[in-house]
Amino acid sequence: MNTDFLKACQGEKTSRTPIWIMRQAGRYLPDYHKVRSKMTFLELCKTPEKAAEVTLQPVDILGVDAAILFSDILVVLEAMGMKLEFQEKKGPVLPEPITCRADVDRLQVPDAEDELGYVMATIRILRQELADKVPLIGFCGAPFTLATYMIEGGSSKAFFNTKKMMYSAPELYKAMMDKVTDFTINYLKAQAAAGAQALQIFDSWAGALAPIDFGEFALPYVKRIIAALKDSTVPLIYFANNGATLLEQSRTSGADVLGMDWRISLADAARIVGPDISLQGNLDPCALLLPEDKLEKRVAAILAEGKEARGHIFNLGHGILPETPPEKAKFVVECVHRLSS
Amino acid sequence: MNTDFLKACQGEKTSRTPIWIMRQAGRYLPDYHKVRSKMTFLELCKTPEKAAEVTLQPVDILGVDAAILFSDILVVLEAMGMKLEFQEKKGPVLPEPITCRADVDRLQVPDAEDELGYVMATIRILRQELADKVPLIGFCGAPFTLATYMIEGGSSKAFFNTKKMMYSAPELYKAMMDKVTDFTINYLKAQAAAGAQALQIFDSWAGALAPIDFGEFALPYVKRIIAALKDSTVPLIYFANNGATLLEQSRTSGADVLGMDWRISLADAARIVGPDISLQGNLDPCALLLPEDKLEKRVAAILAEGKEARGHIFNLGHGILPETPPEKAKFVVECVHRLSS
Repeated sequence: MNTDFLKACQGEKTSRTPIWIMRQAGRYLPDYHKVRSKMTFLELCKTPEKAAEVTLQPVDILGVDAAILFSDILVVLEAMGMKLEFQEKKGPVLPEPITCRADVDRLQVPDAEDELGYVMATIRILRQELADKVPLIGFCGAPFTLATYMIEGGSSKAFFNTKKMMYSAPELYKAMMDKVTDFTINYLKAQAAAGAQALQIFDSWAGALAPIDFGEFALPYVKRIIAALKDSTVPLIYFANNGATLLEQSRTSGADVLGMDWRISLADAARIVGPDISLQGNLDPCALLLPEDKLEKRVAAILAEGKEARGHIFNLGHGILPETPPEKAKFVVECVHRLSS
Repeated sequence: MNTDFLKACQGEKTSRTPIWIMRQAGRYLPDYHKVRSKMTFLELCKTPEKAAEVTLQPVDILGVDAAILFSDILVVLEAMGMKLEFQEKKGPVLPEPITCRADVDRLQVPDAEDELGYVMATIRILRQELADKVPLIGFCGAPFTLATYMIEGGSSKAFFNTKKMMYSAPELYKAMMDKVTDFTINYLKAQAAAGAQALQIFDSWAGALAPIDFGEFALPYVKRIIAALKDSTVPLIYFANNGATLLEQSRTSGADVLGMDWRISLADAARIVGPDISLQGNLDPCALLLPEDKLEKRVAAILAEGKEARGHIFNLGHGILPETPPEKAKFVVECVHRLSS
């Protein structure tokens, strides 16, 4: 098996810099559209054979060093009893958001194998299919990011309602976060037990928080999750999107790897996180629009900066955009491997 | 006249920390709605007596230390010949975005007094009305932020088209930016000549750029504007929203003051910008939802951090939210004045 990814997570020496791409199984790939056109997004998440099929596509097409489970961070909320819809163009909608104590009390903390068995089934298929190819990454949403969807009922710009609950009803917010955290721990343990070889926690909206609020309302729950998973020996990656100013705090999360977006150089990030944490990132997804010669220069610059970190896993700083030509993604993978060999 | 704001811009001693609030003339004020309900947003911008009236409202209601012209950064684009609409809920729409050389060639660089005379008329009324009260701030959008609207045709999330033009047609992008920059210089000079006593450059979307792109595609145009305005002796404020990781570069902009959002502490920002630049900011607009005792603690913490800077102008880290109770805004103004006296 190609173990470069797992080695880089632990700061061990690799044959070349490993790379995977956030949302590598997704809308920029014609092969993905072929599968997706026959069912809804949620149906695809819940059909293990098909979810496994799209998970494998980028491994074959791009030659990345890790597969990441095809799923969505919000399936957790459906499993906890919330209604969840994905509307074309509009994105996720939770028509009955959390507003009061009764709503929080109604949230269930089931066993993940019962309610999200389709995820674990997908993982089991994938481990068989991947066999000796590349490791499989499982994932979840960080509790704060999940909370924004639970409270806003969908995507948001200012996260007004989320912050309103934090500030004016902190006990209610924390009761909700405790439930989400408990279930997430159960969910990640089930993923690891089913065969996930690394786990990434996506904190997509952490960057909306002032450092003081991040420390009180977001990071403690991430720490609890990571601490609870430590026995599993599976490497943990924490990606706080737009979180450059939160790094001093994120470095205490317990994660083996911190994901970085493109707003900070990896060299600066490495200086902040120190010698005990690997870094993942951080090419601007829009940089895949550059002509190849300029794109290669950007890749080289990030590889050079990544050398400052304990270990470096190349990635984009955010999910690959649907508009990206697949051959550009393939070119980046090829570049990373060639330049780091 | 209350000169605390102007003194803080230059790093001179003030009687107390001055405060104004981004979007202080706006939708959270019932008095604003009374005026606005009788005309469209653009009509309000273009009716000097009414624009002046809403500009003055927060000075009287909140007791802030500066007035900021009621207008919009996008009127510049209309003056340059682009169609501009403001749709309720959807925000600004430019139905004919810039896509090619012919579009750029068609952009006009008129005299601001001719095409935006209504802004200068508003400023002249305001200087009369404000007389010995507080200084008047004029403003513009930074060229990069304007470019995003010109190319995307409205608001955007990933700025895909903007970055696509930057990367694949840099000459076209730069030709467009040169025109926008030239007109912006003309516009700000006209504002200063009409009586604006400070000028703020809003770079609302700078935070979408990697540091390397900011240095090539955004900052040089801001520098040109500031350099061209230096003779006017009017203090210049540069606000790069979500720009914590761009500060090393922003400090070279030539601005007297740098605006900060809430993602970075003012103490950290002061350490980066050094002893020759004042800071403005940086309370999270959502913090105005906090109960008064907790809100006061946040204000006190920001005032303490602001002492590390050459000068400090209190502000929010972004525009005040429409949902904000006006009495909370008034409370913040009162807090800042009381705690810093």
